[in-house]
Amino acid sequence: MPYTYDYPRPGLTVDCVVFGLDEQIDLKVLLIQRQIPPFQHQWALPGGFVQMDESLEDAARRELREETGVQGIFLEQLYTFGDLGRDPRDRIISVAYYALINLIEYPLQASTDAEDAAWYSIENLPSLAFDHAQILKQAIRRLQGKVRYEPIGFELLPQKFTLTQIQQLYETVLGHPLDKRNFRKKLLKMDLLIPLDEQQTGVAHRAARLYQFDQSKYELLKQQGFNFEV
Amino acid sequence: MPYTYDYPRPGLTVDCVVFGLDEQIDLKVLLIQRQIPPFQHQWALPGGFVQMDESLEDAARRELREETGVQGIFLEQLYTFGDLGRDPRDRIISVAYYALINLIEYPLQASTDAEDAAWYSIENLPSLAFDHAQILKQAIRRLQGKVRYEPIGFELLPQKFTLTQIQQLYETVLGHPLDKRNFRKKLLKMDLLIPLDEQQTGVAHRAARLYQFDQSKYELLKQQGFNFEV
Repeated sequence: MPYTYDYPRPGLTVDCVVFGLDEQIDLKVLLIQRQIPPFQHQWALPGGFVQMDESLEDAARRELREETGVQGIFLEQLYTFGDLGRDPRDRIISVAYYALINLIEYPLQASTDAEDAAWYSIENLPSLAFDHAQILKQAIRRLQGKVRYEPIGFELLPQKFTLTQIQQLYETVLGHPLDKRNFRKKLLKMDLLIPLDEQQTGVAHRAARLYQFDQSKYELLKQQGFNFEV
Repeated sequence: MPYTYDYPRPGLTVDCVVFGLDEQIDLKVLLIQRQIPPFQHQWALPGGFVQMDESLEDAARRELREETGVQGIFLEQLYTFGDLGRDPRDRIISVAYYALINLIEYPLQASTDAEDAAWYSIENLPSLAFDHAQILKQAIRRLQGKVRYEPIGFELLPQKFTLTQIQQLYETVLGHPLDKRNFRKKLLKMDLLIPLDEQQTGVAHRAARLYQFDQSKYELLKQQGFNFEV
């Protein structure tokens, strides 16, 4: 059944950039392998067309669940991509969303338009369909902006972590190494971490102390913000 | 000539939230009065439908120029609004942009779908068409978020201004009064202002010293950021 309008209309899709950390504190992004053209069998961000009876965020949630099995996560709107020629089929605009999750808690299950779903390290990405490399780049920039002004990690790290692990997270997001002494000084000054009477287990090197976030302090700093770089 | 698609498509518009400061340092927003239904004769944000051969940002620029005469300004993408029922005509998604300008430099000239264009104080707004009150609210929140982490004012204030005027700008944006001593201490610590050997003229009270922004320091702080609140 065809649909007719007086003026031409662009198509409208949503795309999801879901970041996750694995046990090695490697920052990964959730990708799907496309079952259908264009870019058939190529990797892409999960996403698809918005239906007329759902909000943009509901569309993002539905596509993510259908294509990867991931659900029940907080998606934040990232940016809307609408350049001419970004989709070979037609003029298509995409509203991108992003999220941070602890990937261990979310088993993957590809379905509908996706023949596979997998976590890829942001350091080692396959060639992506459409302008998805650009969307991902923008999401990484947003994450880098965020980390400067509010705490991240709660959504990404295991519940108990070492100071080395949180430094690794910051280094991965910022894309450059940080001075260990300086990093720890800044971090402890924020008064965000609770030292536990526990140490990590199963490591070859000397076991380090485990920490967890002080949740109320974390929420406060999320509202109040800080400047990590000065 | 009708356009036909296999699946229904939402309409796509852009809307512009342009903030300006007047000589009394009152924060204003640029509105147009609609010439055509829906919401005929009601005030609204400048905006309109995206054409198939222009980018989203070009569409925002074109609509702003056509409806208000304002052009040559830097528009930043704010957010995309796509809730069901936000437009009585049809399912219509709007990509909102925002900008800060010194309104004295931009004379208004209503045209095309706008029967009038005017600056309204954000403290004294008319009832707005569509969900434009919500879009404006989100733009004000973005401005409040921005002012906490980077300098603003360069785009809004006259080239030479007093410390009272910049405090007024911050108070208007943040929506609450600031302690004068504390504000000046923070401001001077940023090393952002150059004191001039000039004083304001034509005022009834004792003339205050004029300042201007140190442009290179301003650009540096825009990149590096700060936390105004701690």
